[in-house]
Amino acid sequence: MNRTTYCGLVDESYLNKEVCLDGWVAKRRDLGKLIFIDLRDREGIVQLVFSDKNSAEALKVADDIRNEYVIEVKGTVVARSEKEVNPDMKTGKIEVDVSEVKILNKSVTPPFDIKNDITASEETKLKYRYLDLRRPEVQKGIILRSKIMRSVHSYFDDNGFIDVETPNLTVSTPEGARDYLVPSRLYHGSFYALPQSPQLFKQLLMGAGFDRYYQIARCFRDEDLRGDRQPEFTQIDMETSFLKPEEIQDITEGLIKKVMKDTLNIDVKTPFKRITWQESMDRFGTDQPDVRFGMELKDLSDIVKDVNFKVFSGTVQNGGKVKAIAVPDGAEKYSRKDIDKYTEYVKRFGAKGLAWMKVTDEGLTGPIAKFFDDQTVVDKMLEKTEAKPGDLLLFVADREKVVADTLGYLRCDIAEHLNMIPKDVFDFLWVVDWPLFEYDEGIERWVPAHHPFTMPNEGDEHYLNEGEDPHKAHAQSYDIILNGLELGGGSIRIHKKDLQMKMLKALGFSEERAYKRFGYFLHALDYGFPPHGGLAIGLDRFARLLAQTENIRDVIAFPKNSKATEPMTNAPAPVSKKQLDDLGLESEDDSEE
Amino acid sequence: MNRTTYCGLVDESYLNKEVCLDGWVAKRRDLGKLIFIDLRDREGIVQLVFSDKNSAEALKVADDIRNEYVIEVKGTVVARSEKEVNPDMKTGKIEVDVSEVKILNKSVTPPFDIKNDITASEETKLKYRYLDLRRPEVQKGIILRSKIMRSVHSYFDDNGFIDVETPNLTVSTPEGARDYLVPSRLYHGSFYALPQSPQLFKQLLMGAGFDRYYQIARCFRDEDLRGDRQPEFTQIDMETSFLKPEEIQDITEGLIKKVMKDTLNIDVKTPFKRITWQESMDRFGTDQPDVRFGMELKDLSDIVKDVNFKVFSGTVQNGGKVKAIAVPDGAEKYSRKDIDKYTEYVKRFGAKGLAWMKVTDEGLTGPIAKFFDDQTVVDKMLEKTEAKPGDLLLFVADREKVVADTLGYLRCDIAEHLNMIPKDVFDFLWVVDWPLFEYDEGIERWVPAHHPFTMPNEGDEHYLNEGEDPHKAHAQSYDIILNGLELGGGSIRIHKKDLQMKMLKALGFSEERAYKRFGYFLHALDYGFPPHGGLAIGLDRFARLLAQTENIRDVIAFPKNSKATEPMTNAPAPVSKKQLDDLGLESEDDSEE
Repeated sequence: MNRTTYCGLVDESYLNKEVCLDGWVAKRRDLGKLIFIDLRDREGIVQLVFSDKNSAEALKVADDIRNEYVIEVKGTVVARSEKEVNPDMKTGKIEVDVSEVKILNKSVTPPFDIKNDITASEETKLKYRYLDLRRPEVQKGIILRSKIMRSVHSYFDDNGFIDVETPNLTVSTPEGARDYLVPSRLYHGSFYALPQSPQLFKQLLMGAGFDRYYQIARCFRDEDLRGDRQPEFTQIDMETSFLKPEEIQDITEGLIKKVMKDTLNIDVKTPFKRITWQESMDRFGTDQPDVRFGMELKDLSDIVKDVNFKVFSGTVQNGGKVKAIAVPDGAEKYSRKDIDKYTEYVKRFGAKGLAWMKVTDEGLTGPIAKFFDDQTVVDKMLEKTEAKPGDLLLFVADREKVVADTLGYLRCDIAEHLNMIPKDVFDFLWVVDWPLFEYDEGIERWVPAHHPFTMPNEGDEHYLNEGEDPHKAHAQSYDIILNGLELGGGSIRIHKKDLQMKMLKALGFSEERAYKRFGYFLHALDYGFPPHGGLAIGLDRFARLLAQTENIRDVIAFPKNSKATEPMTNAPAPVSKKQLDDLGLESEDDSEE
Repeated sequence: MNRTTYCGLVDESYLNKEVCLDGWVAKRRDLGKLIFIDLRDREGIVQLVFSDKNSAEALKVADDIRNEYVIEVKGTVVARSEKEVNPDMKTGKIEVDVSEVKILNKSVTPPFDIKNDITASEETKLKYRYLDLRRPEVQKGIILRSKIMRSVHSYFDDNGFIDVETPNLTVSTPEGARDYLVPSRLYHGSFYALPQSPQLFKQLLMGAGFDRYYQIARCFRDEDLRGDRQPEFTQIDMETSFLKPEEIQDITEGLIKKVMKDTLNIDVKTPFKRITWQESMDRFGTDQPDVRFGMELKDLSDIVKDVNFKVFSGTVQNGGKVKAIAVPDGAEKYSRKDIDKYTEYVKRFGAKGLAWMKVTDEGLTGPIAKFFDDQTVVDKMLEKTEAKPGDLLLFVADREKVVADTLGYLRCDIAEHLNMIPKDVFDFLWVVDWPLFEYDEGIERWVPAHHPFTMPNEGDEHYLNEGEDPHKAHAQSYDIILNGLELGGGSIRIHKKDLQMKMLKALGFSEERAYKRFGYFLHALDYGFPPHGGLAIGLDRFARLLAQTENIRDVIAFPKNSKATEPMTNAPAPVSKKQLDDLGLESEDDSEE
């Protein structure tokens, strides 16, 4: 026997033809002299019929068959009786009258059903990942990812890009996270680092004259894990020489247009919207704005700077901001108790409180309404916020960053809660003109908004000179946002050594430490690097967003769990004393295999 | 200015047109009022002319320009004077009269010239790899590799394969080499291993029903390095379900046919030749036969078993073999001294000696000829070896393996030396029907000829039963050979747990140790794995052979040297005490950053 097609592809065009199929038993209904089996492969399910009439022998074999057995069958495709037709399935109008069957392999009972919507724990699913991957919805995610990769390869090749593999055993790369290290057996005390990104290698390829590089590159970061992060992840990585930011953005838009068409058959309109970083912060309180809905942040600072409500006027007079969002029809939808809950929640952003008023036909109501007795101020507030009767106004008065974080969060959470976000919409936009540096409140110092190789805006280079304030500089960088999440980012890079050194000094590097850390790259810049720039897109997130799933693990074949372990293989695992000895290492928790 | 095309693409079709070009200064000839510059980019070189006549200003700038400066020029394409036409260059009939020039970046003098055929040491070239990569022959290798990858992606996608990424941070994989380890920061004393191949993951994908998988996969082996090996390498990896070996070989041939056409425009004839492992050993003394030339090994054991020359007859009577190769016209080409050198050399294969005779019109000559006084024996020897007057016969009498290794080596070395190997020929063939096990003389035990997951031949499974001799079993495995080198290999895999356990036991695993090492995979086999098999091709070697270069580093952008270090970045490198502390490690050679 030789398979003639996939189970999921047998349709009316096969009527009265003989087929040979291989697959897994998804379901079995035993009616004694008649056994129905749903046979599954990666393309779908087809119904098999075993009966005395077709083949007594096959019927006997079918008696022993259980779920997840692997079988091979030969049979004739016949039409289903009218009442058995399933219009939702490609194979729903036919069934296969089986004449021969062979059990290729048996299966014990799986720990969970092989179907969508199961309740097994994440840990169980990962432990039996090979079974989880049999579930159609999981397979769909992996196949979608494969289609994205195919589309990416095809696009870049068609546009003159060269696919170059960069090393995985290398030195620390400059993305600021913790490195995964690989001890050297030949040089005890020395370690390779797994790359956090191919950033410097792709810049070196531009220095080497490759002109257009791309790679679907594996990257590694030993960070604390969050929902969307994995210890290893994949990046669609590209770099070009002699191009302006707009040209790199055009190339990226072409890529995304093609991927969306190839994978979901969606026509994406280009060029994408572009807004500056400042505008994004002002209107949405974030640099990853979700523009699928309104409810934007409105700056009322000027309007309320002299009101009796000291929380507002005092904040403005002290250099802070007062902003508001108008929740459509929110007056009824949110009780005082709901708002109190938010007030509690937003403290994590440093917000001291959350003021609110409801808009009625008679004007503003609520505990603080009494402070707003000047009708001109009220009119201006209503005009600015575009609020109408029935809306709820939420105000935050605080430092600019706290206002942005708080209202940026509330805007999205409320939109989600009120179903204001249209489904099946893919809203791409560029956020451009970023600051070159940003202040990291956690570690209390200035860090690069992207990375230390980002080119300042034309005219902003002088801010890096000694005696000037580098934090005023803006960058030739651009992030691409999809539905409120950063999909990728890029920039024009610094291609001259003196400027690169100034940049590193602005980040607190001494010349000595700069050479120690990036010496090979600084030396390379002596030898005629071209102007260059590029971009990287997170493939895992891109695939997750296109698959419209919440869980990044749905688009990774063998992901780690949230504790960075692989429940199936039990990686990471103890190694033998001999292996450690070979590496010249002692572990504080040494265990023998 | 905006680049209009690449330097290397400017030909007569641009005559009298204005172009804008970006590139590197490859050469500069200063004739005072006239300066010629060769401008280089990845597509080639174009000649620029700076003159008073074109633009006095541009001429002035050109005065400061040096080799490897990055410049942008605008100018008009004009025909070269007849005596300056270079018919070997695409741009050889034209030159560009420059009207505007801009220096985009300067360069110090490079440590070696940016051209083919340089004498710089390997170490210098790797230290300045970004400059080495500017050399056209090196760029060509990297671009060829990119084209191969493109062709591979396209082929597999067109044939229903799904591109699936498998983890790089995982557990030890079963290829028998040393693992690279990655210490876990969260679980001190535990380590991830970098994969030696995706073998078990791809088998799990078959268990999961993906049916056809491929990946261009990075693999890692901490082995002692040889010419053709790198610590990390890339494998074209594929696996299929429900197919026979011949079907997998067909798919592979289709792949190779397409790659050869897409990259070198060579039409490869399929199906490829197939010979069994036994035939390959008999005729060529190796399992990686170079079939581009003859000079095959001829077994004379039967003919010489009773001759007076005891070295021959004694060997046969003790169960050994006597084989010969006939070197065409070798009688004149090889002196007794040459042969003595070989005799010394082949001791590394365990050969005790190398017997020889020359064929003349009068019969055999040489020191041992006197032992061959029976003309019937001589006639049979000449007939079997197909030797003609003028040929040199080289004999080895020894254990079968020693004979094979010695003559297998001599055959290739002599062919190389005598220019018997045709150039520009790509001779693919399959070596099939391998033994399941082979004896490793180094470690003095039986090991899998491929890996422990290889399916025995139909009918050979019983050899794995207790009490039988497993080493008699042959395997459903196949290697693909190109020009005497293994390009890749594959097999049908074991898909039933009881057989897999027998196989592991035959390799000396106790049940307990088998579960400890491969437990997750053995458990997986409980759940209905389909019959499956696949193949992997070494991309680095494939690219090297297509690029017709001796050095694998010519087709890897950032290779390691023969000491597993990267002279450019100095990887591997010492790390800080804090990094080690984070990992709970102490190094015997602890150095601070």
